[in-house]
Amino acid sequence: MDAFKLEGLIAAPFTPFHADGSLNPDMIPQMAHALVKNGVNGVFVCGTTGEGMSLTLQERRVVAQKWVECAADQLRIVVHVGHTCLTDARQLAEHAAQIGAHAVAAMAPSFFRPANAQDLADFCAAIAAAAPQLPFYYYHIPSMTGVGIPVIELLKEAVSIPNFAGVKYTHWDLMDFGQCTRFGNGRYDVLFGRDEYMLAGFGLGAEGAIGSTYCFAAPVYQRLLKAFHAGDLDTARMEQGLAADMIATFAPYGGLPAQKAMMRMIGIDCGPVRLPLRTLSAEKYEKLRSELDTMGFFTRCVK
Amino acid sequence: MDAFKLEGLIAAPFTPFHADGSLNPDMIPQMAHALVKNGVNGVFVCGTTGEGMSLTLQERRVVAQKWVECAADQLRIVVHVGHTCLTDARQLAEHAAQIGAHAVAAMAPSFFRPANAQDLADFCAAIAAAAPQLPFYYYHIPSMTGVGIPVIELLKEAVSIPNFAGVKYTHWDLMDFGQCTRFGNGRYDVLFGRDEYMLAGFGLGAEGAIGSTYCFAAPVYQRLLKAFHAGDLDTARMEQGLAADMIATFAPYGGLPAQKAMMRMIGIDCGPVRLPLRTLSAEKYEKLRSELDTMGFFTRCVK
Amino acid sequence: MDAFKLEGLIAAPFTPFHADGSLNPDMIPQMAHALVKNGVNGVFVCGTTGEGMSLTLQERRVVAQKWVECAADQLRIVVHVGHTCLTDARQLAEHAAQIGAHAVAAMAPSFFRPANAQDLADFCAAIAAAAPQLPFYYYHIPSMTGVGIPVIELLKEAVSIPNFAGVKYTHWDLMDFGQCTRFGNGRYDVLFGRDEYMLAGFGLGAEGAIGSTYCFAAPVYQRLLKAFHAGDLDTARMEQGLAADMIATFAPYGGLPAQKAMMRMIGIDCGPVRLPLRTLSAEKYEKLRSELDTMGFFTRCVK
Amino acid sequence: MDAFKLEGLIAAPFTPFHADGSLNPDMIPQMAHALVKNGVNGVFVCGTTGEGMSLTLQERRVVAQKWVECAADQLRIVVHVGHTCLTDARQLAEHAAQIGAHAVAAMAPSFFRPANAQDLADFCAAIAAAAPQLPFYYYHIPSMTGVGIPVIELLKEAVSIPNFAGVKYTHWDLMDFGQCTRFGNGRYDVLFGRDEYMLAGFGLGAEGAIGSTYCFAAPVYQRLLKAFHAGDLDTARMEQGLAADMIATFAPYGGLPAQKAMMRMIGIDCGPVRLPLRTLSAEKYEKLRSELDTMGFFTRCVK
Repeated sequence: MDAFKLEGLIAAPFTPFHADGSLNPDMIPQMAHALVKNGVNGVFVCGTTGEGMSLTLQERRVVAQKWVECAADQLRIVVHVGHTCLTDARQLAEHAAQIGAHAVAAMAPSFFRPANAQDLADFCAAIAAAAPQLPFYYYHIPSMTGVGIPVIELLKEAVSIPNFAGVKYTHWDLMDFGQCTRFGNGRYDVLFGRDEYMLAGFGLGAEGAIGSTYCFAAPVYQRLLKAFHAGDLDTARMEQGLAADMIATFAPYGGLPAQKAMMRMIGIDCGPVRLPLRTLSAEKYEKLRSELDTMGFFTRCVK
Repeated sequence: MDAFKLEGLIAAPFTPFHADGSLNPDMIPQMAHALVKNGVNGVFVCGTTGEGMSLTLQERRVVAQKWVECAADQLRIVVHVGHTCLTDARQLAEHAAQIGAHAVAAMAPSFFRPANAQDLADFCAAIAAAAPQLPFYYYHIPSMTGVGIPVIELLKEAVSIPNFAGVKYTHWDLMDFGQCTRFGNGRYDVLFGRDEYMLAGFGLGAEGAIGSTYCFAAPVYQRLLKAFHAGDLDTARMEQGLAADMIATFAPYGGLPAQKAMMRMIGIDCGPVRLPLRTLSAEKYEKLRSELDTMGFFTRCVK
Repeated sequence: MDAFKLEGLIAAPFTPFHADGSLNPDMIPQMAHALVKNGVNGVFVCGTTGEGMSLTLQERRVVAQKWVECAADQLRIVVHVGHTCLTDARQLAEHAAQIGAHAVAAMAPSFFRPANAQDLADFCAAIAAAAPQLPFYYYHIPSMTGVGIPVIELLKEAVSIPNFAGVKYTHWDLMDFGQCTRFGNGRYDVLFGRDEYMLAGFGLGAEGAIGSTYCFAAPVYQRLLKAFHAGDLDTARMEQGLAADMIATFAPYGGLPAQKAMMRMIGIDCGPVRLPLRTLSAEKYEKLRSELDTMGFFTRCVK
Repeated sequence: MDAFKLEGLIAAPFTPFHADGSLNPDMIPQMAHALVKNGVNGVFVCGTTGEGMSLTLQERRVVAQKWVECAADQLRIVVHVGHTCLTDARQLAEHAAQIGAHAVAAMAPSFFRPANAQDLADFCAAIAAAAPQLPFYYYHIPSMTGVGIPVIELLKEAVSIPNFAGVKYTHWDLMDFGQCTRFGNGRYDVLFGRDEYMLAGFGLGAEGAIGSTYCFAAPVYQRLLKAFHAGDLDTARMEQGLAADMIATFAPYGGLPAQKAMMRMIGIDCGPVRLPLRTLSAEKYEKLRSELDTMGFFTRCVK
C-alpha cells in the first residue's frame, strides 16, 4: 500500500439520473471520458457531490461498479462508502474491494456523532477492516456531518489502522490541515477539498485535491497548478480568482443543483437532483446560464 | 383517519442488542410488557432512541414487525421510517403499512437539508404517500438533523398531504410549538418530545408526549400528568423536578449509552449501543448506578 | 435584602431618543405612567430593549436617574449595569445605588466570554460588590452574549455573593430554568424572560417575568396571569396565543426596531433606534401597522 | 491617503497591567523596542489581544497615546476604536487623530449586530468620519463579534467612505479574503489576521499580517516571509509548521492568558489579564513553560 497516492486533481462526480430521478449509469462513460481529456487523475464516487446519502445501497453499488468498469484503467477510483449505519458502510467497502476499486473513503457518521477521536477512529477502523487490501481515506467535511474533531487527533489514533492512507480535507481549518500534512513526516496522503481556495492548500503542502468543480472547470485548476509548480504565484492567484468568481456566481443558486445544471450546460446532462435538494427551475437555469456567460465560464473555465 | 390521536405517554424504546451488537428482538415482548404495566399508550419505534440510523433496513423491518406482533393490541405502534435516502424511507413506510403498524413518522433528512418548508413538505409527502392508509407524523428534532425550519411553516404546506396527522416536537421553540397546537383549530396532533420539561408542553396545550425516559421512569410522569390534570401544579412541578434531577444525573454519561445502561439496571437488558456511540464501561456503569441510587432513581422514579 | 422580590410583570423599557438619535429622557414620565396604568410592577432599565450597549456611560446614568426620579415610588427600578469592561460596570452599579435604584443587574460580558461558572461568578461578584446594599440579578441571555453556561452552575458558585438575589432568565432551557427556581428551596428570584412563552415559565414555577412586549401589550399578559392563577389554563393559553400572533407579526421587521415603531403607533413615541440597528422606513412602518391592525393588536393587545 | 499601506508584520500588542490589574503604560516603550528589534513594522493597539473591550475609554486613550509618544517614528500606530456604542467609538477615533496615530480601525459591534452590509457600512462610515484625515480599517473577526457578513459585500458598500483603507481579516474564509484582495484592482489594503496559517494568506495575495504571536515569535514569521519571497515554499512551510506547533502548545491554556504568560517568560512582563479572562495559575504557568521548552519555543521561536 506504500505506493498509493492521489495527486493532482481528483473529481467528485455527480451521480447521473434520468429525468424521472431514476439512476442513469449509462452517462458515466461520457463523464469519465471528459475527465480524462481534462487531465483529471481520479474520481471520488458517491460522496457529497454524488448524492451518496440519497441513493440506496444497491444504487451506490451500481454506480461504483460502472466507474470501475469504464474507467479504472485511466482514473483512480475512490469509492465513498460512508453511512450512518456501520454495517452498511462495511458492506459497501467489501463490495468496492470485490469490484476492483482503488480505494475506499468514509465520512464521519452524521446522525449520531462520535464524541471524540477514539470513537471516530474505531468507526473508521471497522470500515477499513472490511476492505483490508484497499487504502482507506477519512473524508472530513464538518459542514455536512457536524463532526469537527480535529483530524490531527484522529491521525494519532489511526496509526493502528493498517490500511489508513489519508484524508479528504474539506474544511477551513488550515492549521489542522497543515499539521496533518506534516504528521509522521508526511506519512499520510492529505488531499485538499475546498476548490474555492485550493491554492492555499497547495501552498501549505497539499499535492492533490478532490472537488466537484473539477468536473466542469478542470482547465482553470490545471493552469493554476502549472503556474504554482512553476513558481508563478501571480498567475496561480489569477486563476484562483477566476474559480472564485465562478463559484460566487453559482453559489446563490444552491451549490449542488446549480452545478448539476452546469453539467447540462456543457453537454454532459446528469439530470435532476433528488429531494430534499431541488432541481433548478427552467427560469433559474437560464438566469444562471446568462450570469455564467457574463463572467466568462464558457470561454475561460471549461477549456 | 380522523379518530387517530396519540395521548398520554408514548415511549421511544431502545433497540435491544446482544452483547456482540447483533439484533436481539426477543427482548421486545418483555419491554412491551413493562410499558403496558406502567400505563404507557404507545411506542415510537426505530427513532433516535431506537438507534434507527445505526440499523440496516432489514433490521428496522424486523424490529417494527416484532413490536406489532407482540404489542399492537395494547400499544399504538408508530414506526419511524425517516432516512436520508427517500427511496429507503418510502420502502420502510410501505413495510410498516403491510405489517399493520398504526402510524409512520419521519424526521427531516439530516445530510442534505431541505432549504425551506416547501422542500421539506415535498419530502414528507413522498413518504406519506407510500403508506396512504396510515397517519403520518413529522419528527422535528433539529438538534440531531440540523433542520430548524419552524414547524408552523411546514404545517401550512402540509395541508395538501391527506394523511399528515401530526408532529413529534423535540425542540425548545415553545412559541412555534404553541402555534402548531393552535393551527387550524387543533387540526394536528402535536406531541411534546422534551421529557425534561414535559410540564411546559402540557401547559401550552400538548395532550401527549413521546420520549425515551418513559421507558424506565413512566411512574414519575404519570404522577405528573395526574396532578396536572387535577389542577395541582405544585405536585406536577415537584415530579418534573424529580425527572430533571434524574436527567441531570445521567446526562454527563452520554444520553443514550447511559439510558441503555439504566434499562439493564432495572432488569430489562437491552445490551450495548452501536458505534459511533460508546457503551458505558463497567466502572462508569457502577458510578452511574451509585449516583442514581443517591438521587432516588430506584425508589422514586421506576415505580 | 430578604424581602426583595420581583413579581408579576416587569417591563424592559425602550430608551427614548429624539429624531436625531440624541437622548430624550423627558419621555420617561409618560412611559412610566402608561406602565403603572397597566399594572406593571417594575422596569428593567438599559438592558437589551433599552439599547444599553449603544449608550454612553453618561447616557446610561441619565436614563437610570430619570426612571428613579419619576417612578421609584410606583415601580421597582432595576438598573442594568452590564458591560464588557468590568470597571465601567462597577461604576454604573455604584451610581445606581447612589441614586436610589432598587436593584442592579448585569449580563455576562459578551466580547471575551467567561470560560466557566467560576469565572462568570467572579465577574458578577465584582459588580455586586460595587452596590452591596442592592440586590443583584444575573441577566442570562445567551442569544446576545454567546455565554451559555447553565445558570444552575452559576448559582452554586454564587452562594458566596451576599447580595446575589436572582436571575432574569431569557433563554429556552426550561430544565435549567426549573432547576434554578428549585435551587436552595427557592432561594433565588428567577424571572422569566421569554414573553413568547411566558405561560410555560409560570407553569414551571416563575412568579415574575421581564420583557419588552409588556411595554405595549401588558393587558394581554395580565389577562393571561389572571386566568393562570384562577386555574383556567384554556384562557391563559388563548391569551398566550394572542401574544404569539403579535410577536410573529412584528418579528420579521426586526425585533427591536419594530417594537419601537409600535410604541409610536400607540402614542408613546420613543424615537428611532441607534446604529447598528435600523429604524423602520415609513413604508415598512405603515405595512407593519396594517398587519398589526389585521391581527387585532390595537383592539385586543394594547387594552 | 493613497500612499498608506501596512506591510510585513504588524503586531497586536498586549495591554500591560500591574499585578493588581491597573494599567501599566510604562511597559510600552520596552515592548516597542522589542518589536522594532525584530523587524515588526507596526502595532494594532487596543484590539482583541490588547483587551480593548475590557478597558475604560480613558485607559484606551492612555494606551494609544503612549504608543504614539514612544514609537510613532519607528512603528505604524493603528488604534482600534471599535465599541458597541457608536458615540464612544467616534470619540476614540477623534482622539486617535488628535494624538497623531497613523490609522484607526474598528470591529463590527458585537452586541447588536448589523443585519446586512449596508448597516455595517453605515456604522463604519460614522466612525471613519470622526477621523477623516486618517485611513480607516475594518477589523473582521466573526469568532468574537458574531458578525459574519462577507467582507466583499462590505467593500462594495464602503466605496463611498473616502478614508476606507482596508481590512484586518481574522477569519477562515479564504475565498472571501481573496475576493477582497482583488477588489477594485487591489484598491484596499487587506491584511491577514490568522497567524496559524499566515502562509496561506500570503499565497493568496496578502502583503501584510496582523497578529498577536508576532509580539514574541516574530523571528519565525520573518524567516517564513523571507523564504516565501525567495520562492522557497518548503522552508516557508517548515517555519509555518513551527508556528503551528507553538500555537498548538499554548492554545489549550487559553489563547490570551497563555500568550500574556509567554511575554513574561521572555522578560517583557505585561502582567495579568482582566476578568472575564483568567490569569494562568503558577502551576499552569510552569507547565506551559516546560511544554514550550520541549517544543523549542525559547531556542527557535523567540530568536
